[in-house]
Amino acid sequence: MDTGKMIADQFKALQQHICSELNKADGQAEFKMNAWTKDIGQGVSGVMQGGKYIEKAAVNFSHVGGTYSEQMAKLLGEEASTYTATGVSSILHPVNVHVPIIHMNVRYFELDNGTRWFGGGIDLTPHYIVKEDARWFHEELKAVCDSAHPEFYDRFKPWADDYFFLPHRNETRGVGGIFFDRLKPGEELGERELLEFCIQLGRLYPQVYAALILRHGDKAVNEAQKAWQGLRRGRYVEFNLVHDRGTKFGLVSGGNTESILLSMPPIANWEYMHEPEAGSEEAKTLELLKKGIDWLNV
Amino acid sequence: MDTGKMIADQFKALQQHICSELNKADGQAEFKMNAWTKDIGQGVSGVMQGGKYIEKAAVNFSHVGGTYSEQMAKLLGEEASTYTATGVSSILHPVNVHVPIIHMNVRYFELDNGTRWFGGGIDLTPHYIVKEDARWFHEELKAVCDSAHPEFYDRFKPWADDYFFLPHRNETRGVGGIFFDRLKPGEELGERELLEFCIQLGRLYPQVYAALILRHGDKAVNEAQKAWQGLRRGRYVEFNLVHDRGTKFGLVSGGNTESILLSMPPIANWEYMHEPEAGSEEAKTLELLKKGIDWLNV
Repeated sequence: MDTGKMIADQFKALQQHICSELNKADGQAEFKMNAWTKDIGQGVSGVMQGGKYIEKAAVNFSHVGGTYSEQMAKLLGEEASTYTATGVSSILHPVNVHVPIIHMNVRYFELDNGTRWFGGGIDLTPHYIVKEDARWFHEELKAVCDSAHPEFYDRFKPWADDYFFLPHRNETRGVGGIFFDRLKPGEELGERELLEFCIQLGRLYPQVYAALILRHGDKAVNEAQKAWQGLRRGRYVEFNLVHDRGTKFGLVSGGNTESILLSMPPIANWEYMHEPEAGSEEAKTLELLKKGIDWLNV
Repeated sequence: MDTGKMIADQFKALQQHICSELNKADGQAEFKMNAWTKDIGQGVSGVMQGGKYIEKAAVNFSHVGGTYSEQMAKLLGEEASTYTATGVSSILHPVNVHVPIIHMNVRYFELDNGTRWFGGGIDLTPHYIVKEDARWFHEELKAVCDSAHPEFYDRFKPWADDYFFLPHRNETRGVGGIFFDRLKPGEELGERELLEFCIQLGRLYPQVYAALILRHGDKAVNEAQKAWQGLRRGRYVEFNLVHDRGTKFGLVSGGNTESILLSMPPIANWEYMHEPEAGSEEAKTLELLKKGIDWLNV
């Protein structure tokens, strides 16, 4: 059987599970599923807009392939002629500033030179960092990592710190999470175990978010906090358009632009030289946007 | 005398001229000039916010230099050890949707391998394209080009079409203008003439914008038009963060992030699969976001 196709089918089922769980968590809006087909392959964009708790959500599945271009070679650092890629990627922008932005991606690549690998990650971007949330989020991630391999969390947590980082701001995107790439079947784990790890991560994602909505989704928000949300969303735009490899890969490989840019918030703001007041909640959050924080022990 | 220093001084004077002319055109807000110094050099960011006609404007001057990094080599395609760069770059975001966004940049590069060149451009991004404005704008550009070299306009106009283009949207950023790079002193023109060309372009810039404010700055705007402005600003953000070489060069060379990202609009919007109604003014504008339109003869 075609391994890529089997994995794509599992990822597609994962997408459906995530959408269904998030429908329940929001309770008001529902995902609309838009299937698309292009010369490079096909996909389904799941989109939720105007929810009670989720302002905009994207849960995208795609299964694409074709000629391996020079631009892809530059991005991936591998020589090949053709590629296949399948994955699920998702970003949620909440209504309430006290609920974090969250992102999850799992993906599988196959090159015709025989190389193939899994990659993925989850990271959390609170507008206001709550240490207890960050600790709990990392504990949940660690539990899924530990069930696959005892070293995964310790290796993938600093990888997320490095990846979800804006050098031009000298800020992490949030409290991090885990990031991994080039997990090749047959090295530490087999294909089945790696796929299972990705699926478990994907299933953790809506579970974590439903809990965060329960904790913070009905909190009061004032104008100043709303303005802060706009600025933090601006940073999210900067990361995704300047740094994110998935976005870049999607755009240069001729992916579905509307699906890729579903990661953009509905609204974002920029303010020249904005500096929060010393000692404010905003300033405290900025102080915690650093690499290397041991969130399990804060 | 140090040529780079002489050119930097002229660019700095150009910045002051532009700010002073735009202060007059707005009539309400004024530019604040923020000098900065970093290890790579220094600059002055001119910033106007909350004007009567100009919602946010940046007119930046910088004069930087240092070690020529691998990332710069990739961007510029030249081998060298050190570089010097000086330039003025500006973007204006208007209050009124009927006034276009505009951008101008003039720059001078010197590498220690002896290579040096001028580059620059102006381009206009109307939220609603008015053909008469586009024609007049291109006539003004052509006049400045013709005063320097009879072939400049015909060469630099298509260059702008190619440069100010969003491949992932298959849209030009607006009605284009001119773009040029690697104009090396001693090839077609001498250093003095090339510098003069840049200065004349820089002086045209506030003159053109003052005229556009007079024409359109007091027009009525409804909610639907305001929403369209947010979406077009989203496209502007996409271009600047994904494609613009000046922004990329600035961010990778360790430039002043707040100055570089002054190009961001105060607010931008994204809406999934937004499509204007057939026959609407918005749809007519989208149809004109194409390369190769002969704006002198529309």
